[in-house]
Amino acid sequence: MTGKNIHVTVWNEFLHEKKDPYVTKIYPEGIHEAIAEYLNKKPGIETRTATLEKPEHGLTDDVLNDTDVLIWWGHMAHDRVRDDVVEKVYHRITCGGMGLIVLHSAHHSKIFKRLMGTSCNLRWREDGQRERLWVVSPWHPIAEGVGDYFEIEQTEMYGEFFDIPKPDEIVFISWFKGGEVFRSGCCFHRGQGKIFYFRPGHETYPIYHNRTVLRVIENAVRWVAPVRRPETPTILRAIHAKPLEDLK
Amino acid sequence: MTGKNIHVTVWNEFLHEKKDPYVTKIYPEGIHEAIAEYLNKKPGIETRTATLEKPEHGLTDDVLNDTDVLIWWGHMAHDRVRDDVVEKVYHRITCGGMGLIVLHSAHHSKIFKRLMGTSCNLRWREDGQRERLWVVSPWHPIAEGVGDYFEIEQTEMYGEFFDIPKPDEIVFISWFKGGEVFRSGCCFHRGQGKIFYFRPGHETYPIYHNRTVLRVIENAVRWVAPVRRPETPTILRAIHAKPLEDLK
Amino acid sequence: MTGKNIHVTVWNEFLHEKKDPYVTKIYPEGIHEAIAEYLNKKPGIETRTATLEKPEHGLTDDVLNDTDVLIWWGHMAHDRVRDDVVEKVYHRITCGGMGLIVLHSAHHSKIFKRLMGTSCNLRWREDGQRERLWVVSPWHPIAEGVGDYFEIEQTEMYGEFFDIPKPDEIVFISWFKGGEVFRSGCCFHRGQGKIFYFRPGHETYPIYHNRTVLRVIENAVRWVAPVRRPETPTILRAIHAKPLEDLK
Amino acid sequence: MTGKNIHVTVWNEFLHEKKDPYVTKIYPEGIHEAIAEYLNKKPGIETRTATLEKPEHGLTDDVLNDTDVLIWWGHMAHDRVRDDVVEKVYHRITCGGMGLIVLHSAHHSKIFKRLMGTSCNLRWREDGQRERLWVVSPWHPIAEGVGDYFEIEQTEMYGEFFDIPKPDEIVFISWFKGGEVFRSGCCFHRGQGKIFYFRPGHETYPIYHNRTVLRVIENAVRWVAPVRRPETPTILRAIHAKPLEDLK
Repeated sequence: MTGKNIHVTVWNEFLHEKKDPYVTKIYPEGIHEAIAEYLNKKPGIETRTATLEKPEHGLTDDVLNDTDVLIWWGHMAHDRVRDDVVEKVYHRITCGGMGLIVLHSAHHSKIFKRLMGTSCNLRWREDGQRERLWVVSPWHPIAEGVGDYFEIEQTEMYGEFFDIPKPDEIVFISWFKGGEVFRSGCCFHRGQGKIFYFRPGHETYPIYHNRTVLRVIENAVRWVAPVRRPETPTILRAIHAKPLEDLK
Repeated sequence: MTGKNIHVTVWNEFLHEKKDPYVTKIYPEGIHEAIAEYLNKKPGIETRTATLEKPEHGLTDDVLNDTDVLIWWGHMAHDRVRDDVVEKVYHRITCGGMGLIVLHSAHHSKIFKRLMGTSCNLRWREDGQRERLWVVSPWHPIAEGVGDYFEIEQTEMYGEFFDIPKPDEIVFISWFKGGEVFRSGCCFHRGQGKIFYFRPGHETYPIYHNRTVLRVIENAVRWVAPVRRPETPTILRAIHAKPLEDLK
Repeated sequence: MTGKNIHVTVWNEFLHEKKDPYVTKIYPEGIHEAIAEYLNKKPGIETRTATLEKPEHGLTDDVLNDTDVLIWWGHMAHDRVRDDVVEKVYHRITCGGMGLIVLHSAHHSKIFKRLMGTSCNLRWREDGQRERLWVVSPWHPIAEGVGDYFEIEQTEMYGEFFDIPKPDEIVFISWFKGGEVFRSGCCFHRGQGKIFYFRPGHETYPIYHNRTVLRVIENAVRWVAPVRRPETPTILRAIHAKPLEDLK
Repeated sequence: MTGKNIHVTVWNEFLHEKKDPYVTKIYPEGIHEAIAEYLNKKPGIETRTATLEKPEHGLTDDVLNDTDVLIWWGHMAHDRVRDDVVEKVYHRITCGGMGLIVLHSAHHSKIFKRLMGTSCNLRWREDGQRERLWVVSPWHPIAEGVGDYFEIEQTEMYGEFFDIPKPDEIVFISWFKGGEVFRSGCCFHRGQGKIFYFRPGHETYPIYHNRTVLRVIENAVRWVAPVRRPETPTILRAIHAKPLEDLK
C-alpha cells in the first residue's frame, strides 16, 4: 500500500445519471459519489472519484500511482474508454498490485475483458424481480458480516452461463425469481493484483444505497488492497536467470 | 467431435529447423512432423500439420472447422502470426470447443496470451541441464502411464514466477538442477474449450523424440478433445432471457 | 482400468423400495437396478449391483478389486454401513484409483464424509417443486449432451450452505422455486481417485428414469474411471527418499 | 475475532526439546516459545502457548474459545493427542472459524488428517541440504514482504507426491538440492475456518529463528484469523428450510 490508509478511486462513466431523470433521482451526484460517500466514513479508507468525461477519464498517472483500489462502474459507454488508459490500469493491477472491483454491467468493460481473456457474456433481463445472494464461501473476508444470504428486492437479472475463467473463489451465488442462477461474487488474481467482480448494481434501482451491498464493497476494498513485496521483476518482464551456483 | 476419430492439427512456425543445421539434424522434417508421426500411429487419432509460411498459416476455415485439437509450437516469430487468424483460432476454441495444446516457447504466442489475459512471462536459461517433472495430480488422465516423475536429460530451464492465471489443474511441477521450479503441465478452460500448456520442447534438444513427452502429448490430445453439446448460444453472444413463467 | 470395459458396481442401501409401496411402484427392482439397467446398454460399460443387506454389503475384496467405478445411493441407514467396508472402499479409491459417484442423500454417507473431511450438511425441504440445473462448466465431459440447463419437474430441495471443501470443478448449479441454489454437480480428487457428487435422486420421485439424469451419470462413469499408472507408492505410504545423486 | 487483537495459541508437543540436547540448544524454551516470542512483539497479536503434557494438552474449552488462531507443531507423538481434544479443535475451526497453521511434521497430526480426509503422506530425507521456496501466488497476503524466493540453508527434505486434496491456493513451491519439489505453502478452507500448511521447521535446524520463516508465520496468522459473521447454523447442523413464500 502507498500509505497507512487504503486509497480508493471510484470510477463511473456517469452518463445515465445525467440523462435519465429517473436515475438522477436515485443517484443525484452519481453512483460514484454514493459509493465514495459510504466508504469515506469507514476507518482506514480514503476515497476519490473519477469519471469518463474528465481528461484521461480522471485516471492520470498521478491518480493511478496513488490508488490502491480502483472500483469500476460502466454500462453504455465501454467503447469510449481509451485503450491507452485501459493498458495503464492493466499494468498498475498486474505489476503494481492495485486491486480492482468490477461492478454489475462493468462485466463488459474493456479492463475486465482484458484481464479475463474471455467474452464475459451472460444472460440478462430487466424485470425488477427479487434476487437472493447465497454465501458459498463462509470463511471469506468479503462475506464478513453477511448472514446465510441477503436479498435485493428489485433488480436486473444476470444469468449463467457467465463466460469467465473459473473464478479462484466464488463468494456468492444468486437466485433469481425468474429461474436463473449466477456466480455473483467472484475473485480472480492476475500477476500481483486481486480482482473482485460483484453483480448487484443496476442504475434504475437504489442498489448502492443497500447497506449489505455497501458492506460487501467495503469488505472487498480491504480484500483486494495490495500486498507489499520487494521488487518482483518477473512480473514486469521475461528474465534471463543465472543458476544457483553462480548466485552464490 | 467432428467424427469418430480425433482430428489433430499440429502447427509449427517451422523456422529454426530450416535455418539452423543443428536443429535440422534433430528434426529433419520439422518439429510438427515428429509429433504428427507419433500421434498418427495411435488409435483414434488422425493428424495433419500446418506451418507459418503457408497461406493463412495453414489454418483456413476448412482446416479449423475440421480440427478437434490444435497443437501449437512457436518461438522466434510469434509477431508474424496474423491477428485475424489468432481471432479465428480463439473463437474456434471458446465457442466451438476445439482443444489447444501449447508447447514450450509458445507460452509467448499470441493465442496463449489472448486466452490467458496475462503476460505469460517467466525466467529462463539455456544451460542444457537436467529437468525432473513430478506428477502432482496422480488422478489426471494426462498423467496416465507416467510414474512418480520423469526426467529430461538436457533442456532449457523455465522458472517461476510464470505469469499466468491460477491453472485449473497443475499436472506436473518441474525441478531444475540450477535451483528453479516450474508449473510445467497446466490445464485451463475458456468457454467450451480446454487448454493444456506443456513446458518441455526446446528446439536444440531431441525432446520430442522422448517417449514420455510424446505419451503426455497423446494423453493431452485425448483430454482436450471437444465435448459435444447442443447449441449453447450464451457463449457466442449476450442473451436477453425470458423468465421461467414465459418459457412454460 | 482392469480391462477394456469399465466395470461399474451400483450400490444401494435398498430399504425404501422394500418398505414404502409408493417407492416400490417407482423402482420395483430398486434404484440400483434402474441405474444398472440403463448403464448396461451403453458401450464399454459392464454393471453389477450390491446392497446393504448382502454379506459385507456386497462389497467383498473380489468385487472391489474388479470395480472401476462405484456408484453409491443411501439415505436412512448410513450408520449401518460397516466401518471396515468403508475403509476398504476408501483405500480402493485413493490408492487404487477407483472412481466414486455419490448420489443425492449419500452426501451423508460415511464414505463421502470420510473423503471430504467435512460434515456435508445442507438445507433441505421435501416440497416436490421444480429444479433447474444450469451448466457452469460447459467444457466438462460430464456436461456432454446437456444444453444450457435441464429441469426436474418435482424434487426434494437441497440448498446452500453445503458444507464441503471447495469442489475442484462445479459442473451444475441448481435453482429451486422456493428460493435456494445448490452446487449440484461437484468434482473432487483424492489420491489416485476421482469423485463426482450429483444431487438429483430422491426416492419418492422417478428421477432415475429421467434421460438427462441418466446421461449425466453415464458421463460421470466415464469421467471418474481410473487412470492407469505404474506403481505410485507415495500414495500408499510415506517414503524415505534417496537424493538424485544416489539414484544415478 | 473475539476482540481487537488476534489471540494466538502456539501448540507444541514439546518432547524433542526436552530429550535431545542438540535440539535443546536450538530451542531452550521449546519451539512454541520461540514462535510465541516473535509473534508477541507484533502489533495486534497476543500469544499464549500450550503443550502435549498439560491437562487436555493445554487446550481447554476456555483456551479454545479465546483462540482466534491455533499454530500446531508435532512430530513423534501424534498418537498421544486425545481424540476428544482433536474433535473440539475441529469444531472450533469449522463452526467457529478459528484459523489453523500446521507446521512441518504436523502434516501427520490427527487434526490435519481429519480436516484433509487424506493420508497426508509424502517423501522425506534428512540430509541437511538447501531448500529454496519460490512464490507462485505473488498477490497473496502470506507472501507479503517476501521476494521472488527465499532460502533455508539446511533442512529436512519433503517431496511430492504430497497426498492432500488440491490446495485452494499454493503460495510457495520448494526446490530441494537432491531433486525434489514440494507444495510448501498451501491454503485450505473448511466450513468457517481457514487453514495454512507451511513446510519449514525441522527441530534439528534453527528454522524458527529464520526471519523470513517467522514473517511468513506472522502473515499467515493475519490471513487465517476468523471472519465475523452472524450465526450461520447450516455449518453446525442440517437444516429443514422453509420456502421463500413462507419466509415473507
